[in-house]
Amino acid sequence: MPQTDPARLTADLIRCPSVTPEEGGALVLLEKLLSEAGFQCTRTDRGNVSNLFARWGAKGHAKTFGFNGHTDVVPLGDKAAWTMPPFGAEEKDGFMYGRGSTDMKSGVAAFAAAAIDFVKDTPPDGAIILTITGDEEGDAVDGTTALLDYMERTGEQMSVCLVGEPTCPDEMGEMIKIGRRGSLTAWFTVTGVQGHSAYPHRANNPLNAMVRLMDRLASHKLDQGTDHFDASTLAVVTIDTGNPATNVIPTQAASTVNIRFNDSHSGASLTEWLQGEAGKVAAEFGVEIGIDVQVSGESFITPPGALSDLVSASVEAETGRKPELSTTGGTSDARFVKNHCPVVEFGLVGKTMHQVDERVEVAQIHQLKSIYTRILQDYFA
Amino acid sequence: MPQTDPARLTADLIRCPSVTPEEGGALVLLEKLLSEAGFQCTRTDRGNVSNLFARWGAKGHAKTFGFNGHTDVVPLGDKAAWTMPPFGAEEKDGFMYGRGSTDMKSGVAAFAAAAIDFVKDTPPDGAIILTITGDEEGDAVDGTTALLDYMERTGEQMSVCLVGEPTCPDEMGEMIKIGRRGSLTAWFTVTGVQGHSAYPHRANNPLNAMVRLMDRLASHKLDQGTDHFDASTLAVVTIDTGNPATNVIPTQAASTVNIRFNDSHSGASLTEWLQGEAGKVAAEFGVEIGIDVQVSGESFITPPGALSDLVSASVEAETGRKPELSTTGGTSDARFVKNHCPVVEFGLVGKTMHQVDERVEVAQIHQLKSIYTRILQDYFA
Ligand SMILES: [Zn+2]
Ligand SMILES: [Zn+2]
Repeated sequence: MPQTDPARLTADLIRCPSVTPEEGGALVLLEKLLSEAGFQCTRTDRGNVSNLFARWGAKGHAKTFGFNGHTDVVPLGDKAAWTMPPFGAEEKDGFMYGRGSTDMKSGVAAFAAAAIDFVKDTPPDGAIILTITGDEEGDAVDGTTALLDYMERTGEQMSVCLVGEPTCPDEMGEMIKIGRRGSLTAWFTVTGVQGHSAYPHRANNPLNAMVRLMDRLASHKLDQGTDHFDASTLAVVTIDTGNPATNVIPTQAASTVNIRFNDSHSGASLTEWLQGEAGKVAAEFGVEIGIDVQVSGESFITPPGALSDLVSASVEAETGRKPELSTTGGTSDARFVKNHCPVVEFGLVGKTMHQVDERVEVAQIHQLKSIYTRILQDYFA
Repeated sequence: MPQTDPARLTADLIRCPSVTPEEGGALVLLEKLLSEAGFQCTRTDRGNVSNLFARWGAKGHAKTFGFNGHTDVVPLGDKAAWTMPPFGAEEKDGFMYGRGSTDMKSGVAAFAAAAIDFVKDTPPDGAIILTITGDEEGDAVDGTTALLDYMERTGEQMSVCLVGEPTCPDEMGEMIKIGRRGSLTAWFTVTGVQGHSAYPHRANNPLNAMVRLMDRLASHKLDQGTDHFDASTLAVVTIDTGNPATNVIPTQAASTVNIRFNDSHSGASLTEWLQGEAGKVAAEFGVEIGIDVQVSGESFITPPGALSDLVSASVEAETGRKPELSTTGGTSDARFVKNHCPVVEFGLVGKTMHQVDERVEVAQIHQLKSIYTRILQDYFA
């Protein structure tokens, strides 16, 4: 039987201008293709976001393999700097160019092609679920979350899930992500008493408390790392006062701190720690310190085990590389999926993602489909 | 003989709109008045600044009493907020209103009136020199400095000098200034290596070094004060980064520090100290720290002695208050005069100087003339 060409599907998807939250034709195309292959498709659009749920096989089957991905792409950036049409999918020297070529239309194309051909060639005793969202790059509140809400509501369940984001820093096959550190941002405002710089004792300089507090936070070692995570890190990203007068002690100063934390902390425990440190400095200096905290995501992990072994073995078989199990990097929709079932992430080399002239090595798309196919074969074996 | 009314002279001067560097008619008026009273007058204008030198008595007399003051005034500020015409010299409830009424047309009027009447009533065996500039409130490079240059060039010499700036914080007669602390401003720029806040070890955050350095400077005790000076003070007046991205470690951060220092330091010694502290932190953190330093003025003092005793006794005789000998406050032209001869400053209550609705208590102008007259009597007695 003729096989589904994942590179051609990637090109078709690149030609859909699906900058978040535009659907751009990408999900319509996938729904048609998957329906024709025997997948039951449901659009679970929410707000201005389009989402596609697709299942092959029986609902609620105890052996249900899931793939998750997104078809939305980030904006073009400096449009004039592109040397190839950003929605053209043109090829040159073995690379296909276009926004989303790496992140992650090639990933979606590879798992869709693998799933379509797999169920056609060797129909398994089990089910395959594809969840594909049109908002991973935006605020993501109506994206994969909406798909998972739909599944919960209707009793759909994945046993395990593979997110097809590009996970390899440089070489195909070198990295699987089994979790991510959490991220927390805190905004501090220190309020003292304004005054003349010649008479600091009549004022209360908020900057004295600010530098003491930031020095304490920046020089504190949060931990030494844990079994599967790097050490947590804290970065003071900005301190601002905006006082143009050299003879005036300002009333207020502001700063922002970003923490990336592993599983020895939580957003709540770190918030409590920050409040404690701020409280001590506020008392020492007699100033007011306000804190706003936003936890973008808690840390999460699917500990090394059956799922990562499965993916790892397939990657090694196809690429000859034994992938590292990593928890580095920014955020992804795996942070939502991990509440539903074990989840890992594996995809191709992400080097040019979000950049001008984003491009994917065409051979890698085929290789990725082979890896995903082998994963399905091994899972259902 | 009819006496010169210092309040009327103050009013005449207020009506001259002499916002720096405009002469506004003020020095022309004083030159006419002083010439008629037997003073030899010379305009020592320089650049766009008008200055008036006036001497009564023999040039080079060993007993030459000097007065120094300025007729220029600061701008009106919020013009619409004035409830009285700012150049009207109108009186209400015992106060005369107008820009410069306190700082320091009343002071100039009081010493000019005192000098004119004194040489007329009791011509002394000695000389009196008045140096009056049209730029004390501006950058002051062609003001009192030009007058002193002229005097040096022509062999004019004051034995002692009294600057008529308003020196009393609240009550008439409570404070004589015998010196001033120095002032130094330092601008720091810390340059590190930009990076992603999730990977601080791949970046070098300039803010870590910045907060450590500023904390060390702000918590350092420069000294405990000296015989005639308060302790030196250091104020971090601003720290700025301007980084809007919470996931980015910035390349650079800037800060400004202002130091008010007594006679146990100099601009040079403090500059060396700042460079040393910055160098230590730069080495600890592996960042570059640039410093620009501007010394606005060194500290200076006319130690308590004959001149301050003379002024003090007269103030006490006229007001019943024993004035404090202080070195507090901002800068004044005494910083130039101190290179020429012993100098102290005494004038009326400066509360409303530089403010909207600047005003002077009319009775205080008369009292100030009486004090200046008594000083002349005692000096030449
Ligand atoms: Zn992505
Ligand atoms: Zn003044």
